Amino acid sequence: MVAVPTTDQSIDAAVHLHVEDVLAAYLSERRSELPELAATFARAVDHLTDFALRGGKRLRPTFAWWGWRAAGGDADGPLARTVLRTVSALELIQACALVHDDIMDASELRRGHPTVHVRFTEAHRAGGWLGEPERFGAAAAILLGDLALAWADDLFESAALEPAMRAAAREPWQAMRAEMFAGQYLDVLAQAEGDESQERALGVARLKTAAYTVERPLHLGVALAGADQGVVDAVRAFGTDLGVAFQLRDDVLGVYGDTEVTGKPAGDDLREGKRTLLVAIGLAYAERDGRHADAQLLRGALGDPDLTPRTIEQVRELMVEVGAVAELERRIERLTSSALAALDTAGLAEPGVTRLAELAVTATRRDR
Amino acid sequence: MVAVPTTDQSIDAAVHLHVEDVLAAYLSERRSELPELAATFARAVDHLTDFALRGGKRLRPTFAWWGWRAAGGDADGPLARTVLRTVSALELIQACALVHDDIMDASELRRGHPTVHVRFTEAHRAGGWLGEPERFGAAAAILLGDLALAWADDLFESAALEPAMRAAAREPWQAMRAEMFAGQYLDVLAQAEGDESQERALGVARLKTAAYTVERPLHLGVALAGADQGVVDAVRAFGTDLGVAFQLRDDVLGVYGDTEVTGKPAGDDLREGKRTLLVAIGLAYAERDGRHADAQLLRGALGDPDLTPRTIEQVRELMVEVGAVAELERRIERLTSSALAALDTAGLAEPGVTRLAELAVTATRRDR
Repeated sequence: MVAVPTTDQSIDAAVHLHVEDVLAAYLSERRSELPELAATFARAVDHLTDFALRGGKRLRPTFAWWGWRAAGGDADGPLARTVLRTVSALELIQACALVHDDIMDASELRRGHPTVHVRFTEAHRAGGWLGEPERFGAAAAILLGDLALAWADDLFESAALEPAMRAAAREPWQAMRAEMFAGQYLDVLAQAEGDESQERALGVARLKTAAYTVERPLHLGVALAGADQGVVDAVRAFGTDLGVAFQLRDDVLGVYGDTEVTGKPAGDDLREGKRTLLVAIGLAYAERDGRHADAQLLRGALGDPDLTPRTIEQVRELMVEVGAVAELERRIERLTSSALAALDTAGLAEPGVTRLAELAVTATRRDR
Repeated sequence: MVAVPTTDQSIDAAVHLHVEDVLAAYLSERRSELPELAATFARAVDHLTDFALRGGKRLRPTFAWWGWRAAGGDADGPLARTVLRTVSALELIQACALVHDDIMDASELRRGHPTVHVRFTEAHRAGGWLGEPERFGAAAAILLGDLALAWADDLFESAALEPAMRAAAREPWQAMRAEMFAGQYLDVLAQAEGDESQERALGVARLKTAAYTVERPLHLGVALAGADQGVVDAVRAFGTDLGVAFQLRDDVLGVYGDTEVTGKPAGDDLREGKRTLLVAIGLAYAERDGRHADAQLLRGALGDPDLTPRTIEQVRELMVEVGAVAELERRIERLTSSALAALDTAGLAEPGVTRLAELAVTATRRDR
């Protein structure tokens, strides 16, 4: 059941590679257990496996691993592989979230490749099958996302944790999944309602990104190390501020990111009508400055499927001119500082605490 | 954490009511734990709760409960409430399966009420929100189905099982979820490919219904009682045959069922283009009898969104005339007999074994 690592590096030196080894072994094991009758489904599962193993920053297991290390987990101790297995399960939740998110957003590309629902839509079209290709693609991707979510739990539960440790780990695991779906829903709802409030945008960032990507993975990591409440509270405070900063960086990249680097079409957030804090502040500042026509241009761009490169460029200039981008950068800076301050209070161990501080910096200064 | 039963009856006398008590308490508890920020999502969760608590036969927990009882579980013993809690989690998997299935099939009604995605589509339309109402409805229902699946695992894991019992229970739990998604996928694929083979239709029945509805819930029940391999094999054999018979009854009801009783539109299976064994045999027999035009009529009806009552009636008559309905009834009879024969070999305890035999009869002779 334990993955045989294909990497010679230690877990500390390459968490993401070890996570990929665990995932590859687990997905292959589960595929092989599918009944004979389900051979066609096993081939469909290969698309999920491709998706889960190709790319991705493995951020969530990385935060969880370093949370465990910082709270005293021993990388050479007998629990290291069990903890690695437990935190790797976070990537299967993420596979579900992304596969389903791409259906909801009708996204064609993810990490530079066709999304899962698009692959099945294309198979349907190529086969000249019955019914609508898009509906078939969505159905297959809904089911594969569901499978990833079920397998996330199975992988999580397959790790040989002591009952007390398992109970401690389930608290963040439970909360995280509910908070993630809540954040996704609030995001979709804000898009539908055309919500312009900064409060709502921050709420989505808190739940969808901060809780799910940083705070709860860290909480899981320190819980696996048997951390006391003080440590849990400190890393959660670190995770919340850092996670919001991470989302604000995403907001900026969603409008200004380089397609070659992000793997997503230019201006994707605008085309999808995402109600980010950047957009909320952009609108508020444009109105404050009396630039009503410009605010209307931005409103019109949000959710416009036929958005032109020229309009994207106009929106980019507008958000710089009114100071929305500068405000986002200031907030990212401030949140990163307060996150690092919270980390300092936790009394964590080296090298974990230094790695967490480094992760905080890379997570907020990335270009993809 | 334990549900306070609102029913005065014993669990044996009313498994479904006790399951509903557990679900009501659990869903309410999880809703109350959602963060303040997610208040809008909590209101969306109410639609999931309504759906999960309204109607449904609670078949899966009922089979699991009686499997546990038949394998020696004591309804008055200290484990009864823990087992009830564990098997109730099956209904949250089912909530996910149905909510997602209704999106995939674009079904408007379920149990006589608007489906979850339709409720959100209507809210979007009523609010005059941005974007396509159908896409918003699908997104909300995808997320609520995901939440139900995650909560199914959380409820399952929240039951205070001994480690050995938990490990035994996880085997069917794991297998069942993978088999269900596999069966759903094969079903959708058969519809798309216009598959006319009886073998494929039976494969879908085996995975989607037999494994998921009867075999694995029974497996779970006897595993919770610490049953040996002989008992596990016998109840799985019973469950497989009974489960296929159950699906064949569904095939017949999907074409001949009374809308008032089933809560679904007349001829729903035909309109959706379901590739059931009834359809596969109907086509094979029509061709065998040289009724090529009739076979074409049936092929044309499958997946026709504008199917008329007149065509439904013609298809109904055709399937009776070629003997397809009679063949289904013969198979249901035969499978029920072989199921009951397998049950006899298991050496199970009363009253469980009698209740399982009764369930076999009601599951295959129902009208909804």
